[in-house]
Amino acid sequence: MKLNCDMGESFGEWKMGNDSDVMASISMANIACGFHAADPDTMTETIRLANQHGVMLGAHPSYDDKLGFGRRHIVHSLTAIANLLAYQVGALESLCQLQASTLHYVKPHGALYHDMMMDEQVFTVIVKTINQLNRYRQQPLSLMVLSRKDNYRYQAIADDYNVTLILEAFADRAYLASGMLVPRDQPNAVLNTVTAVQQQMQQLLQGKVRTQAGDWLLLDVDSVCVHSDTPQAIQLVKALATLIAPTKHCSDNGK
Amino acid sequence: MKLNCDMGESFGEWKMGNDSDVMASISMANIACGFHAADPDTMTETIRLANQHGVMLGAHPSYDDKLGFGRRHIVHSLTAIANLLAYQVGALESLCQLQASTLHYVKPHGALYHDMMMDEQVFTVIVKTINQLNRYRQQPLSLMVLSRKDNYRYQAIADDYNVTLILEAFADRAYLASGMLVPRDQPNAVLNTVTAVQQQMQQLLQGKVRTQAGDWLLLDVDSVCVHSDTPQAIQLVKALATLIAPTKHCSDNGK
Amino acid sequence: MKLNCDMGESFGEWKMGNDSDVMASISMANIACGFHAADPDTMTETIRLANQHGVMLGAHPSYDDKLGFGRRHIVHSLTAIANLLAYQVGALESLCQLQASTLHYVKPHGALYHDMMMDEQVFTVIVKTINQLNRYRQQPLSLMVLSRKDNYRYQAIADDYNVTLILEAFADRAYLASGMLVPRDQPNAVLNTVTAVQQQMQQLLQGKVRTQAGDWLLLDVDSVCVHSDTPQAIQLVKALATLIAPTKHCSDNGK
Amino acid sequence: MKLNCDMGESFGEWKMGNDSDVMASISMANIACGFHAADPDTMTETIRLANQHGVMLGAHPSYDDKLGFGRRHIVHSLTAIANLLAYQVGALESLCQLQASTLHYVKPHGALYHDMMMDEQVFTVIVKTINQLNRYRQQPLSLMVLSRKDNYRYQAIADDYNVTLILEAFADRAYLASGMLVPRDQPNAVLNTVTAVQQQMQQLLQGKVRTQAGDWLLLDVDSVCVHSDTPQAIQLVKALATLIAPTKHCSDNGK
Repeated sequence: MKLNCDMGESFGEWKMGNDSDVMASISMANIACGFHAADPDTMTETIRLANQHGVMLGAHPSYDDKLGFGRRHIVHSLTAIANLLAYQVGALESLCQLQASTLHYVKPHGALYHDMMMDEQVFTVIVKTINQLNRYRQQPLSLMVLSRKDNYRYQAIADDYNVTLILEAFADRAYLASGMLVPRDQPNAVLNTVTAVQQQMQQLLQGKVRTQAGDWLLLDVDSVCVHSDTPQAIQLVKALATLIAPTKHCSDNGK
Repeated sequence: MKLNCDMGESFGEWKMGNDSDVMASISMANIACGFHAADPDTMTETIRLANQHGVMLGAHPSYDDKLGFGRRHIVHSLTAIANLLAYQVGALESLCQLQASTLHYVKPHGALYHDMMMDEQVFTVIVKTINQLNRYRQQPLSLMVLSRKDNYRYQAIADDYNVTLILEAFADRAYLASGMLVPRDQPNAVLNTVTAVQQQMQQLLQGKVRTQAGDWLLLDVDSVCVHSDTPQAIQLVKALATLIAPTKHCSDNGK
Repeated sequence: MKLNCDMGESFGEWKMGNDSDVMASISMANIACGFHAADPDTMTETIRLANQHGVMLGAHPSYDDKLGFGRRHIVHSLTAIANLLAYQVGALESLCQLQASTLHYVKPHGALYHDMMMDEQVFTVIVKTINQLNRYRQQPLSLMVLSRKDNYRYQAIADDYNVTLILEAFADRAYLASGMLVPRDQPNAVLNTVTAVQQQMQQLLQGKVRTQAGDWLLLDVDSVCVHSDTPQAIQLVKALATLIAPTKHCSDNGK
Repeated sequence: MKLNCDMGESFGEWKMGNDSDVMASISMANIACGFHAADPDTMTETIRLANQHGVMLGAHPSYDDKLGFGRRHIVHSLTAIANLLAYQVGALESLCQLQASTLHYVKPHGALYHDMMMDEQVFTVIVKTINQLNRYRQQPLSLMVLSRKDNYRYQAIADDYNVTLILEAFADRAYLASGMLVPRDQPNAVLNTVTAVQQQMQQLLQGKVRTQAGDWLLLDVDSVCVHSDTPQAIQLVKALATLIAPTKHCSDNGK
């Protein structure tokens, strides 16, 4: 089980998140690519910080929308999605090369992530685009998606394009019975105590989560998403990292 | 001798240049990368058009300045120049990969090109960045620069970084004795008759050009830059392509 | 009957439309305000051109979306719509003041226009915002809207806020039975012969239009929208201006 | 003596400064207008906050450069400066009107402020533009400038255009003998202890300041600029507000 976190979401003079504090506790950094946040200098600094902590590098592409921070749905053709995805992944990979490092995965951001999960055509064009880019890569890119009840459907498409999926879950977001997250504009969408988040993390480590309705949802989880931009972010991330540590230790022993 | 032309400088709904007409007559397309012009869809369409005509693909990176079309000098640190260059080259290369093609060279745009020619430190960081990117490339990137009297100075630096220079000249711009172009805001900076442009092209094919002061300037030239965004662009480009054709034919025979 | 046209939709180096040719034939210029198109210099030049031809000045505000030219629906709160409207109207009015002129009306652009026509709440916040701005104006702003079968509904709201509506129709767009335009992505949405456009203009001058289904739709029309950015734009605009001229002449006589 | 502070410099999701804490201690809010920072919603919220605290509203226009936060010099024609100034002032005034308030002054931001102080032509076009806007205003706009040894020169130009100048000084920035600030990239440009800042404030209240070279510089000062975006901002602002309070009290008594 790995912790992933959105990183490098500053822009010019505007800072966001406590990247330097959080980076020490995570394993996978989803790095903004200049469309919803970041600029080439911010991206470079984020790569440097991730490398310093041995954190795996991922691209976090988005719709082109700084004002809305990539959270607003804006209609795009499937071709346009392929193009903006390739553009951003290539830009970030190139900056990684300046630091002799490389990307390992892609995690779409905000509205693009949401559209990918809700629209099989969007998901398909994304795995197809990754497949095309992978032909030129030594390290193939995986794709991070939300783990749901019916992962097999997206898994089948990803298999067709030979793209590995990384299934992620959220320790600090309430779940609907469908396996989708409770939207942020609804009550109790975000778990707001360390205890509640730790409790959900314990569940996820056992491959399940209790939904808002009270039922158990079985979930395959490869990675848990944490946040760096809330007041209690560091406290939470450290608490979750501690919960994972033994697991990681055990699995290391098992090798 | 090859003709190169700035291509793909449309942006969203705004069209610029007669790319589809000019592409048939040139050998090298300098493709805008989204900073002074273009967006991922425009870039994709430009790559498609260039591939269709067998035109060599080059990146045309710029300062981040759509309002000023990349023509305004904006102070950047050398690191920032490295980063914006890598970002744009990587973004464009990735879009090329979606069409199973690849970049061959880089030609900085507008104020960045000017700063590269006027400031050896800027030139050096650019060849250094290209060197770093070339370590990960099968097809190494060359760098297109303005041919001047003293090319040996930049050539020496480029040699240090193992980057091939492509020396370009202008058939439709007046030259100063220094080998720099007469700035656009000065009188007679742009040659405005087909005859004058053809005459200068004939000179360039013989490795020389008559400066505004009337002296002969000896110039090594690999490529001549033409434009697609003037009323007489197509007429001029075709006229120049015709002048080159026999040369090309002869040299082909000579093999 | 007045002709209105979207004007000033260039941006930096990118030109759009034949403003200087069309301005002579229209009565109302909808001037872009920097969000979907234009910049302060372009706006200034457009005001100058309109003043030169004695054309009434209108604000053409939009969602903040140059890449999508303001044509993409992007969800906004009602407060956000009030704010972006006031921002753009104030910016343009201020530039008008530099030329001792003033705005007479507002016509929302693209997706904002569409949302205003489809969502009564959006329309209401727009008239309310105009009402607030009018308290500080000597020349109150009117609001241009699409004339439909059921104008009385929007008219009642506008009356509540003491905002005059300008009802516009389209001579070159096909109509649905509802009075809405046939969407551009559907067949025959745009009338493409001068004859067809003239014919529809004749109908509009008589307060009616034949819908795509063949029925007559009665329409109150104060202004007809023409375009400046199509190949045959000038020809069409001149043809329509000629049709209107006699009407104007008669009404002048009637004074 | 009034404290002024740059306010409303957030952008979309990115927050900058502790506006809500600082607003209670200042008298004049320099409100960003969307070019170096802010958006219509941020501007609206800043106006609301200023009104709530009875703080005078000022426009803080800038070159159009979010990436560089308006701090980068970008060459502009004088006409372009007039246009961008009018655009931003008008946009902000319009948002003020939605809250039944109005602007009292203009303070250019960053590189535009610097260019205004270094180039008399830039200063002149700014006062000329304000003069033109004032013809349409009930509350004329003043212009805030840096107080220097030779204010009489700019004062004479401002008088020609009937624009009142507000002379500002800095309590937390070191001064050169010329009356210009020590550039931020030089050592000790910013005073970094509360004691040092208070000491300089005491000097300014007496119409003088000790320069970095140790000499006394006599300065007419109407307002002192404070900052909201440093870790110790609130502490400093409160300390300065306390120093001013007696003065303010006395002058109130004097009425």
